[in-house]
Amino acid sequence: MPKHKSFTLGELAKATNTEVVGNSDCHINNLSTIDNASEGSITFLTNKKYLHSLDNCMASAIVVSKEFKEDNRFNFLKSEDPYLTYAKLSKIFKYEEESLSPSIHESAVISELSSIGNNVHIGPNVFIGPNCSIKDNVFIHANCSIVKNVSISSNCLIHPGCVLGSDGFGFAPSQNGYVKIEQLGGLKIGKNVEIGANCSIDRGALDDTEIKDGVILDNLIHIAHNVILGEDSAIAASCAIAGSTKIGKNFRMGGLSGVLGHLEICDDVSVGAHTLITKDIQEPGDYVGIMPAQSHKNWAKSSVFIKKQGK
Amino acid sequence: MPKHKSFTLGELAKATNTEVVGNSDCHINNLSTIDNASEGSITFLTNKKYLHSLDNCMASAIVVSKEFKEDNRFNFLKSEDPYLTYAKLSKIFKYEEESLSPSIHESAVISELSSIGNNVHIGPNVFIGPNCSIKDNVFIHANCSIVKNVSISSNCLIHPGCVLGSDGFGFAPSQNGYVKIEQLGGLKIGKNVEIGANCSIDRGALDDTEIKDGVILDNLIHIAHNVILGEDSAIAASCAIAGSTKIGKNFRMGGLSGVLGHLEICDDVSVGAHTLITKDIQEPGDYVGIMPAQSHKNWAKSSVFIKKQGK
Amino acid sequence: MPKHKSFTLGELAKATNTEVVGNSDCHINNLSTIDNASEGSITFLTNKKYLHSLDNCMASAIVVSKEFKEDNRFNFLKSEDPYLTYAKLSKIFKYEEESLSPSIHESAVISELSSIGNNVHIGPNVFIGPNCSIKDNVFIHANCSIVKNVSISSNCLIHPGCVLGSDGFGFAPSQNGYVKIEQLGGLKIGKNVEIGANCSIDRGALDDTEIKDGVILDNLIHIAHNVILGEDSAIAASCAIAGSTKIGKNFRMGGLSGVLGHLEICDDVSVGAHTLITKDIQEPGDYVGIMPAQSHKNWAKSSVFIKKQGK
Repeated sequence: MPKHKSFTLGELAKATNTEVVGNSDCHINNLSTIDNASEGSITFLTNKKYLHSLDNCMASAIVVSKEFKEDNRFNFLKSEDPYLTYAKLSKIFKYEEESLSPSIHESAVISELSSIGNNVHIGPNVFIGPNCSIKDNVFIHANCSIVKNVSISSNCLIHPGCVLGSDGFGFAPSQNGYVKIEQLGGLKIGKNVEIGANCSIDRGALDDTEIKDGVILDNLIHIAHNVILGEDSAIAASCAIAGSTKIGKNFRMGGLSGVLGHLEICDDVSVGAHTLITKDIQEPGDYVGIMPAQSHKNWAKSSVFIKKQGK
Repeated sequence: MPKHKSFTLGELAKATNTEVVGNSDCHINNLSTIDNASEGSITFLTNKKYLHSLDNCMASAIVVSKEFKEDNRFNFLKSEDPYLTYAKLSKIFKYEEESLSPSIHESAVISELSSIGNNVHIGPNVFIGPNCSIKDNVFIHANCSIVKNVSISSNCLIHPGCVLGSDGFGFAPSQNGYVKIEQLGGLKIGKNVEIGANCSIDRGALDDTEIKDGVILDNLIHIAHNVILGEDSAIAASCAIAGSTKIGKNFRMGGLSGVLGHLEICDDVSVGAHTLITKDIQEPGDYVGIMPAQSHKNWAKSSVFIKKQGK
Repeated sequence: MPKHKSFTLGELAKATNTEVVGNSDCHINNLSTIDNASEGSITFLTNKKYLHSLDNCMASAIVVSKEFKEDNRFNFLKSEDPYLTYAKLSKIFKYEEESLSPSIHESAVISELSSIGNNVHIGPNVFIGPNCSIKDNVFIHANCSIVKNVSISSNCLIHPGCVLGSDGFGFAPSQNGYVKIEQLGGLKIGKNVEIGANCSIDRGALDDTEIKDGVILDNLIHIAHNVILGEDSAIAASCAIAGSTKIGKNFRMGGLSGVLGHLEICDDVSVGAHTLITKDIQEPGDYVGIMPAQSHKNWAKSSVFIKKQGK
């Protein structure tokens, strides 16, 4: 397991712009959950639901909100935003097992027609095809395939197994079966984008597919050709967005959900898990289409009832 | 970006079997969307919905249907099937960034017990295990794993990250947990099949899994052992078909949908997105099972109502 | 195709702890489905639905239940559990196309900070990052990425394209967009676990993600950070389990289904295909939430009706 680092609580307060209540000299050597904290741990409380968990907590310090009524059982870091403070602490306690110096693994295969910026990490067995541009501080994990005409802006993180810039799914039906439409566009990925493991994002048919700055994608997500996905959108695992759909800023979508093709979705839309969006959305807000789960017996009755309405 | 080629409109008409209305000598050097067209562009109109977009279109020529009432603002190619003409033009304007000569990348690992046809491309870091047969003109992109007993017929295109011929999900429950059923069958892929990025298709338990000629699969699709998927079927991203299901010709399925195992689906069935097929289908037609998405508040009411029917 | 082995029926009875009815000296050289059996084949009947298929069956022997009323058309192996006997026979008739000796492929990239047990197979282009521990008799197929802090216990089988130990999807919203929460935990995989092709399982944020002994996962499954998945659970393809959900033993889930995050699911729960679990489950049993598929016309009526309930 990772080695631990050591800081005083005062040092951590300074680094995270928070306020110590208690002993600033207290030594902290790890970041932990409430349940697994021990002496030397700092942990955090972001949900009152877990307040009672503090009763048996062994942490030396706890990150809490400004409003939290502290007692003298613990030392505290009081924060405007405890969850954000936790994120900052996670960076402080991150242990780099191997050299931080980014490198291009010798097994990576990179087209001579593509360009690689400074401070770029390219993991083992990555393939980068022609007409790609990888900007500074991009980290591409092992076994990714960056196929063709892909531009990745600075500070992006691409997890293993991703396929970026693959052919969009474009075919014209004909009497002799489907005729492939060659995909002549590209894929543009903005700055500070994170793409989870085993995702696929196709390049455009003629124009480009675009993933805007600050987007975060979980694992196993599919994004089709010519989708435009707005700034700071967050999509959970196993979702799919169909071709040519244009989505505004700050879109959020739960897992296993989808958006049909050729739609327009305005800014600030949130879609529940296991939901399909089939129409344009012009109003910001929360949209849900989950069929409720029930015992098999009750579901059978509901299901018969629903089908009756269709007859 | 790709270099452009240059043709006269007359040359393009000849190559696509269409009719020029306007200036046959007009020079065309790129294929474009209506919105991004400029002088030298050819674009296409396949949906009357976009008719008004022509008002600001800068293209030199437009592919339209035979019925289209042309004016003298543009040159036209009149086509029986403008979308198919677009597909043909996409091949003409495709720019090959690197040598077209197919090759087997030196990093590919190929079993000595497998055979590779003529004019086959095998990308970087591809693994091909034993008892596989890759026929002529097959293109296998980077980072694919062709595990065992896989036959890929001629003119197939396999996108990156695919796993073909993996073990089917077969286990016998026992008092000591699940006992694996070794998967002794194969996977047969027909001619002119295209398989999208990060798909998985398992080989059969005893008999073979079969993907028939002309099938097109989008990304992140799962096809289980002993599925038979009929000719010219088209499946959108993130779908799954469970084991031993037999599907006829010309099956179409929207994204995030599935078919349960051991079913029989007749020819010419079309399944909507985010829909599960749970029974045999004997009638061609369109089948849909989407739970409608609503505002969170309205959905909550509908959901309570549905559950009430099950009580 | 694989070479065949040859046994007498008596030898197979001994190896599978079953009873011969008929000729023990009958030679068996392959395991087959009822439909494709020929002289020398052994097949099995596990479902009375297929009883009539025996009429044209050419097999030399059939595995049947103890209760089956045999006739003299075939030789039989009578078994307490014909499906389990089939599993055992599959191991006997498995043909190893290439040397069984496990090996670490020369193209695999393995961190010096990780340890590899005895009798471990690591396929081509596998990446194993730091702080990983791969125990004895583990088989890791081609193109897998084992990112960081992953412990795989003995006798596990990992299919191609899996990403294990990737960063969990953890971000704190801030005024400047999402701030990444570094994922400091690990991923612990128990004994006798099988993980299908192109799955992703994230490591924990602080504590570990845990896949317990005997779990079987089909292809393209996502398991988020800090999930605990109980012993002998079986999950079909294209499912997703969200973060911090704790699931008991013997959980079963059909394809394309999901479980939301931070839930607790008791032992012995079975979830249908294409179903989302949104609440804790305290009662063992079957849970289903499939929206029934109908003809497009009927679905439209049902859909309007459902939406009316939300108004």
